[in-house]
Amino acid sequence: MKKVINSVEDVVRDALNGLAAAHPELSVDVVGKVITRAGGPTPGKVGLISGGGSGHEPLHGGFVGLGMLDAACPGEVFTSPVPDQMAQATRDVNSGAGVLHIVKNYTGDVLNFKMAAELADDDGIEVATVVVNDDVAVEDSLYTAGRRGTGATVFVEKIAGALAEQKAPLKAVTDVANEVNERSRSFGIALTACTTPAAGKPGFDLPADEVELGVGIHGEPGRHRVKLQTSSELAGVALSAINDDMPLAGQDLLVMVNGLGGTPLIELYIAYQDVASHIAALGGRITRQLVGNYITSLDMAGFTVTVCKLTNDLTTLWDAPVRTPALRWGV
Amino acid sequence: MKKVINSVEDVVRDALNGLAAAHPELSVDVVGKVITRAGGPTPGKVGLISGGGSGHEPLHGGFVGLGMLDAACPGEVFTSPVPDQMAQATRDVNSGAGVLHIVKNYTGDVLNFKMAAELADDDGIEVATVVVNDDVAVEDSLYTAGRRGTGATVFVEKIAGALAEQKAPLKAVTDVANEVNERSRSFGIALTACTTPAAGKPGFDLPADEVELGVGIHGEPGRHRVKLQTSSELAGVALSAINDDMPLAGQDLLVMVNGLGGTPLIELYIAYQDVASHIAALGGRITRQLVGNYITSLDMAGFTVTVCKLTNDLTTLWDAPVRTPALRWGV
Repeated sequence: MKKVINSVEDVVRDALNGLAAAHPELSVDVVGKVITRAGGPTPGKVGLISGGGSGHEPLHGGFVGLGMLDAACPGEVFTSPVPDQMAQATRDVNSGAGVLHIVKNYTGDVLNFKMAAELADDDGIEVATVVVNDDVAVEDSLYTAGRRGTGATVFVEKIAGALAEQKAPLKAVTDVANEVNERSRSFGIALTACTTPAAGKPGFDLPADEVELGVGIHGEPGRHRVKLQTSSELAGVALSAINDDMPLAGQDLLVMVNGLGGTPLIELYIAYQDVASHIAALGGRITRQLVGNYITSLDMAGFTVTVCKLTNDLTTLWDAPVRTPALRWGV
Repeated sequence: MKKVINSVEDVVRDALNGLAAAHPELSVDVVGKVITRAGGPTPGKVGLISGGGSGHEPLHGGFVGLGMLDAACPGEVFTSPVPDQMAQATRDVNSGAGVLHIVKNYTGDVLNFKMAAELADDDGIEVATVVVNDDVAVEDSLYTAGRRGTGATVFVEKIAGALAEQKAPLKAVTDVANEVNERSRSFGIALTACTTPAAGKPGFDLPADEVELGVGIHGEPGRHRVKLQTSSELAGVALSAINDDMPLAGQDLLVMVNGLGGTPLIELYIAYQDVASHIAALGGRITRQLVGNYITSLDMAGFTVTVCKLTNDLTTLWDAPVRTPALRWGV
C-alpha cells in the first residue's frame, strides 16, 4: 500500500489537522471530530449537519461554509461517526431555529444520526432528518437497507443550505432537502478498487481489463462486471440506468460528473462530453453542471453520474452564493 | 491501461468538448485547440496566454477567466502546442495593450512560444514572455534545459492575471510575473508513475515499496528513489530541498500542496499538515495556501509542494477576485 500518510491510526486526525491549517474559515475540533464554521452558529438560521465515514473528501468537511453546511462529522475511514459527534455538532450549530441532519442511507449512519437526534431532543433542540438514497444501481447492499446515498448528497447540502441561509424555517428546509433527493439519481462505475489504510490492499479484485458497473462509494459491488468499454459506452450504461428509473425527457437537469479520487480531470471532462451527449439523446436539457472530485472513494479510479430534475426554485437555490473549501461562487 | 477515454487519438479533442460543454463562460476552439474567455478580449487589458502539453489539468484551460488567463493552448498529452495555436490565441486576446506569454521551461514549449511571438510581431502585436522554472529537484532533464517549470505557473498566472485585470501596462505585468517566478520554488514526489494514453503503460518502473523524490510533472526522473516514507518524512525532504535553495526563515509564504492526479484529497490534507509543520520549524510563516489538484500529471499518485515568498503587493494580487473553472474567489 502506497499512501501519503503517517500511520494507519492517524489518517483522520492528520487530515483534520491539515484541513484546519488550510482553512482558517473553519473551526475544526480534531479530538471531537466536528468541523463547523469559524464564526459559530448564525442567529435565526436552521443549522445543517452532515457526516459519515471519511475517505469521501471533500464531502462533508469541504462543504462547510456560507450557503451550505454548518457542521460536518467525519468518522474513521468508511466508518460511521458516533452519535456523540453529531450530538455535539447539533448543540454547536443550534441557534434556536432547529437543526437538519443530512444522512446518507447507510445502516450505521442512519442509526447513529437517529441516536444523536434523540440526544438533541433531550436537550430541547428540534431536529429533522433527511435520508439521501439516490443510487439506482442496487436496492440493497452490505452497507445499507434500500438505496445507497451518493452524489445527490452534494445537491441536497447545496440547495437546502441556500434555503437555510435565507432563514427559512426548519420544515421548509427539510422539505426542499427531501425534494432534491426525490428528484435525483446516481450511478457509479469503477475502473479500480480502492484501498483503505486499515486493509492495506484493494477492497475487491478487478481484472486488468474489466470495470465494475454500479459500484458504491465504498467499493460495494455493483450490478455486474464487463470488459473495459469506451467513455461513451460507460456513460450510456450510467444514463440508461438513471433514465429507466427516472425519465429525463423534457426535463431541465443539474448534472454532476464526479471523480472517485484516482481519476484525472482530463478523463472526467471526456466522460462529461459523453454524459451530455447521452442526455441530449434522451431528450433532457442540462442547465447546470459540475465536473470534478466532490464525493470520492479514496484512490478509486472511476466516476459517478448524478442527475437532478430542476425546477425554477431549485435552480435559484443552486445558483445562490456559496463559500466553502470545495464549492464556491457568487461571493 | 484503464482510462475513461474513447480512443487514444481523441483524448484531447474529447476533453476539450467536455470542457466547452461544462463551462459556457469559456469559448473553446476544439479544432484549433485554443481556449479563451467567452466575452472576447477586454479592451485596454494586457492579454495573458499560457499553454503546454495536456495531461496537467486543470492547468491551463481551467485557469482561463476573470483575474487570470485570457487564453490557454493545450497540446497533445505531454506534447508542446504548436506555434500556430499560440499565434492564434495571441491575435484572439490582443486588445492593443500587448500580450504576455507564460511558458513553462520545457524545450519544446519555449521554442514554440518563441516562434509564436515572432509571428505575432509580424502582425504588429507586442509580446513579452516569462519562462517559469521553479523546480529545485534537478538542473537539467530530458525535457528541459535548466530548471523545469511546475507549480509556480499557477502562482504566476494568478498574480500577473490580477495585475493585468487592473489594466496595468505590459511591462508591469511582465515584471510581476518574473518576480513571482523568482520568489517561488517547487519539489515533487511520486508514489506511482503515470500512464500516457499513447504509451499504454506506466512511464517508468517504480517498485511497490519505493517513491521517486524530485519527480517532474511528466514523470521525469527525480533526484533519487527511496523506500516509502511517512508523509512527514516526505514533506521534510521537499521542504529541505526548497529551503536549501531559497531560505524560508522570516518570510511570509504562499504555499501550495498539489496532487498529481491520482492522490485523494484526504492524503493531500495530511501532506499539508506536515508541510506546514516543517515550514514552521524552518521559521517561515504561511499566510496564504492552496490544497488540491492544480497541476497534475495524468493519473500519477504523489504530490508537489510550491512555496512563494510573498510581499504585501503580491498578497494583495493573490487575494484579488478570480473566476475560473478551477480557482474562484471574491466574485
